[in-house]
Amino acid sequence: MSIRLIVTGGTFDKHYDELNGQLTFRDTHLPEILQAARMSEAIEVEINQLVDSLDMGPEDRQRVLESCRRAAEGRIIVTHGTDTMAETARVLGEAGLEKTVVLTGAMVPYAVQRSDAVFNFGFSVAAVQLLPAGVYVAMNGRVFPWDNVRKNKAEGQFERAGSDAANGAARSES
Amino acid sequence: MSIRLIVTGGTFDKHYDELNGQLTFRDTHLPEILQAARMSEAIEVEINQLVDSLDMGPEDRQRVLESCRRAAEGRIIVTHGTDTMAETARVLGEAGLEKTVVLTGAMVPYAVQRSDAVFNFGFSVAAVQLLPAGVYVAMNGRVFPWDNVRKNKAEGQFERAGSDAANGAARSES
Amino acid sequence: MSIRLIVTGGTFDKHYDELNGQLTFRDTHLPEILQAARMSEAIEVEINQLVDSLDMGPEDRQRVLESCRRAAEGRIIVTHGTDTMAETARVLGEAGLEKTVVLTGAMVPYAVQRSDAVFNFGFSVAAVQLLPAGVYVAMNGRVFPWDNVRKNKAEGQFERAGSDAANGAARSES
Amino acid sequence: MSIRLIVTGGTFDKHYDELNGQLTFRDTHLPEILQAARMSEAIEVEINQLVDSLDMGPEDRQRVLESCRRAAEGRIIVTHGTDTMAETARVLGEAGLEKTVVLTGAMVPYAVQRSDAVFNFGFSVAAVQLLPAGVYVAMNGRVFPWDNVRKNKAEGQFERAGSDAANGAARSES
Repeated sequence: MSIRLIVTGGTFDKHYDELNGQLTFRDTHLPEILQAARMSEAIEVEINQLVDSLDMGPEDRQRVLESCRRAAEGRIIVTHGTDTMAETARVLGEAGLEKTVVLTGAMVPYAVQRSDAVFNFGFSVAAVQLLPAGVYVAMNGRVFPWDNVRKNKAEGQFERAGSDAANGAARSES
Repeated sequence: MSIRLIVTGGTFDKHYDELNGQLTFRDTHLPEILQAARMSEAIEVEINQLVDSLDMGPEDRQRVLESCRRAAEGRIIVTHGTDTMAETARVLGEAGLEKTVVLTGAMVPYAVQRSDAVFNFGFSVAAVQLLPAGVYVAMNGRVFPWDNVRKNKAEGQFERAGSDAANGAARSES
Repeated sequence: MSIRLIVTGGTFDKHYDELNGQLTFRDTHLPEILQAARMSEAIEVEINQLVDSLDMGPEDRQRVLESCRRAAEGRIIVTHGTDTMAETARVLGEAGLEKTVVLTGAMVPYAVQRSDAVFNFGFSVAAVQLLPAGVYVAMNGRVFPWDNVRKNKAEGQFERAGSDAANGAARSES
Repeated sequence: MSIRLIVTGGTFDKHYDELNGQLTFRDTHLPEILQAARMSEAIEVEINQLVDSLDMGPEDRQRVLESCRRAAEGRIIVTHGTDTMAETARVLGEAGLEKTVVLTGAMVPYAVQRSDAVFNFGFSVAAVQLLPAGVYVAMNGRVFPWDNVRKNKAEGQFERAGSDAANGAARSES
C-alpha cells in the first residue's frame, strides 16, 4: 500500500536562517524524518512548494490539487502550513477525488525543540492507510473531515467548525 | 473518544545512567512526548511496569492484560519492548477483549538521536482511533494483526509471520 | 573561583511562539544548559534583561555595566545578542573594571537544531576562568579583546576589527 | 593558532546500535559538532581509536602519546572516555611534551538527550588556546593539571586527587 507525500512547507519545514535571524525555507526535513521513522511501507516524497501557507494563493492550492490528481498512489499525505490548511482541504475535498488525502502540519517547526511535527507525521501515516477515500485534516491527535474543521488561532488548535467551541469538556483530560 | 496509554517500558523509555554507563529505566518519557504532541484528545497515562521486554515473564504479560481488561476506555495503546511485543500481543489477542489495543515501541530510545519513538507513538494514536476492536502491533509505519506478526531481528523490522520474508519487494521504495 | 552569569537574551535565548509564529523571549534556557553541563564550579545566574540586542539602547547597556560593577564575583559571563555585542563590549571595556568579563551569544538559538549556543557557553566558561582582567568577546571558538572585534554580518562571524577581512587564510582548515 | 583534535572514543562518541540494543562505536560525532560550533579557528580532526577507555591498554595510551608527539600543532585536544582519562593524562604528562594538551570527554553520550559533550568540547577549545604548555583534564567546567585529578565514580565528577573530597563547599552553589 504505497503512499505519496506531497510537501508544501508550512511551519513544519521552517528553517532558522542565521544570517538574517528569520524563519524561512531552505529544504524539507522529511527525508531526515523518514530515515528515523524506520518505515517499511514504500513512500514517495514530492516537493510541491515550500511556502508559508499565509502566502498561498488560489493557484498554489490548485498546484496541490493537480499533484493529488496526478498521483499514481491512492493514499496521499500533504504537509501544509496550519493557517490555511482548512482552506486547501476544502479545495481538495470539493474536487471529489477517489483517494484518501490527509493534510497535516506543525505548530512548532521540526527543527525547534518540543515540535509536534514528527508526532503529527506519524499520526498521518496511520490515518492515510486506515481512512476511507476522502479528504481529512490530521492535527492535535484527531482526524477532521475537510468540511468540518477550522483552526482556533487563539488556542493554536484545530477543532470542528461547528461544535467544539461550545464543547470545552472534550479537550480536558479524562 | 478517550484513550488509555499503558506504559511497560521497553527501548522506547530507556534512559542513560551516567554513573554506570548503562541503558536502564528511571521513568517514562510519555508525559514529555504528550506535551509536545499538542493532543486535544483526552489520554490517560498508566505506568504498568518499566522493564526490558526480554525480562518479561508470563505474570508480567498477565499484568498488561489485566490493565486492558480493567480499563474504562475502549481504545488502548501499550508501549512495549520490541523483542517480545509479538508474544504479549498474542496473550492480549487470545483474551478476546472487545477493545482496540495497539502495541507499539521503538528500536531507538526516545532519549537518543534519530529515535523512532515519537513517530511510532503518533502512528499508534491514529491507529487506535481508526481500527476496529482487536489487538494490533504498530511498528515501521504498518499495522499488523496480533496473529500474523514477528520481529525480524536481523533487519530490526517487524513483518508478517508468514509472507514478508519472501516478499522483499514490499519493503523497497516505490 | 565562582562565576556570575548575566543573561541579556539575544538569539541564544530566543523561543518559538507557536501562536504567532515568531521568535521571541519567554525565559532563559541557561538553567537547563547548566544542568546538562554538570559543572562543579559555582555559578550564579542573573537575568538582567531578555531582549534582541538590536533593540538595546544606551540605558540597557548601562544596566549590564551596573550588574558587572555590583557583582561580588571577579569572573563574569554575559550572554548577549550578536548584532550589538561589540558595542556593549566597548561600554564595559571603557569602564575599566578590574574583572574578567566575557561576552558570548549564539548565531542559532539554543532551542533550534544545530545551535552554537552550548558550544559558545562552554567556551566562555573556560575563557572567563583563564583570561586576565579585561573585557572580551568569545565567539566562533576565538577570544577577541573588546577594542578589536566586529561582527561580519555577511558571513555571520566575528573577526578582528582591523585585520581579519584581509586575512582569509586564518579561517581556512589547516 | 591551529588546533589538533585527537579522537579516542569514550562515552562522548558512543552510538546506540538498534540491532543489539547496545551502546557501541561506529564513527565520531565531532564533524557534526564542529559544523554546529561555527568555529573560525582551524582545527584538524584525527581519529586515533574509537574505544571505551576501560578497554584501553598501555599500547593504546602510547598510540595517543605518539599522535601528540607527531602533531605539527602545539595545541591538542584529546577526547577520551572518563574512566581512565586521568591515567592517559598521566602518560602524556610524564612525557614532558612542549605542547598544551587538554583531555576531555562526556558523562552522557553526545547522541543522548542532556549530554555534557558539546559543553565540554567548547570548554576545551578555549582551554587549549589559553593554557600554557602542559597536560590538563577539562571536565565539569574546571581545568585540572594531569598530576592532580581523579574521577569520583560515585558522584560522576572529576576532582582534585588530594583535596576535593574533604572540600565539598567548593562545589556548592554560591
